[in-house]
Amino acid sequence: MARRSEHTREQLRDLMLEAAEQLIVDKGLAGLSARAIARQIGYTPGTIYLVFANLDELILHVNARTLDRLRVPMQAAVAATDDPEQQLLGAARAYADFARSHPNLWRACFEHRLPEDVAGPDFIDARIAQLVELIMAPLARVSGAEGAALDAAAQSLWSGVHGVCILTLTGKLHMVGGQATEHLTDDLVTHYLAGLVMRAAPADAR
Amino acid sequence: MARRSEHTREQLRDLMLEAAEQLIVDKGLAGLSARAIARQIGYTPGTIYLVFANLDELILHVNARTLDRLRVPMQAAVAATDDPEQQLLGAARAYADFARSHPNLWRACFEHRLPEDVAGPDFIDARIAQLVELIMAPLARVSGAEGAALDAAAQSLWSGVHGVCILTLTGKLHMVGGQATEHLTDDLVTHYLAGLVMRAAPADAR
Repeated sequence: MARRSEHTREQLRDLMLEAAEQLIVDKGLAGLSARAIARQIGYTPGTIYLVFANLDELILHVNARTLDRLRVPMQAAVAATDDPEQQLLGAARAYADFARSHPNLWRACFEHRLPEDVAGPDFIDARIAQLVELIMAPLARVSGAEGAALDAAAQSLWSGVHGVCILTLTGKLHMVGGQATEHLTDDLVTHYLAGLVMRAAPADAR
Repeated sequence: MARRSEHTREQLRDLMLEAAEQLIVDKGLAGLSARAIARQIGYTPGTIYLVFANLDELILHVNARTLDRLRVPMQAAVAATDDPEQQLLGAARAYADFARSHPNLWRACFEHRLPEDVAGPDFIDARIAQLVELIMAPLARVSGAEGAALDAAAQSLWSGVHGVCILTLTGKLHMVGGQATEHLTDDLVTHYLAGLVMRAAPADAR
């Protein structure tokens, strides 16, 4: 408890986010409580509510950091090649790798629920939109899709890869483990893109 | 508490499963505890452990019932037409409809986690295999895929639809709500199948 009151509000905020992040890494979202965070940083639970409105807000800020970290390898994968199909495969693999190497943090982004009557905050929506936008340009180039069709393609492709990650991570697919995730991610992206390209092509070019 | 000791073990088991199911429907998996189930049925929490090894085992049996119910509309969709693409679209829509109309029960099947060192039971694996097998025959017919490629196709298609369901259900996609789920499910299945068919066709037939 020696550190009590030694920190500015900004420092406290960082300490709390780091402690919460480590608790989620170790035990998952279910292992998180204001009491556990407070114990980690040597403050009373009440201190948390001087910095965050409630535990949900704190978790959302941890999730925002996770989404920022997830974007980095996806951006790198898109920057690594000029071939739009390879950009999409690379981004999907980067997403799956991140999910596998940070399973609890990744799941926290998607399993955390706010009360039914509370809308998700803009800073989370904006980060998810950034992820979806990352794959928009290569999807447009590879398929010629635009507007609502491009939007739907980006969202269903992301959802598809997300589904592969969640079901392999939680052991629900019988080909479990890392190999299965990469294999199924590639299978899904490759076939989806081939179908999108074929359907988008004018009939006489098929 | 009047019902105490009035039930056989088999009746108790059913009562506990029904109470647990209702608690999950109302509050999600996080709202479930032995105490809450016991209160519902008018027994002490200890009685639960005379019937089930632990709360995890009870939850797994609720999930088995959910998976059995989920299979019914999917089977009906496959039986409703002889066109394999329509069978797959129908099964995917039935899956998405079930997820939307029973969100907490459906999520419990996939979010429930056993301790790391405990393998999932065969009765869950078998039910998941049944769902995947449902789409195997139409997938084989539509694409000519077989063996490991057919297996991968069934798993990535299911995972993809699952991902659409989980992200629309949890409000992570900006086109939220039921419309988005059906639209994205159709988009994913249609493009994936078109790609699978194209890639499976001999090169000179493309």
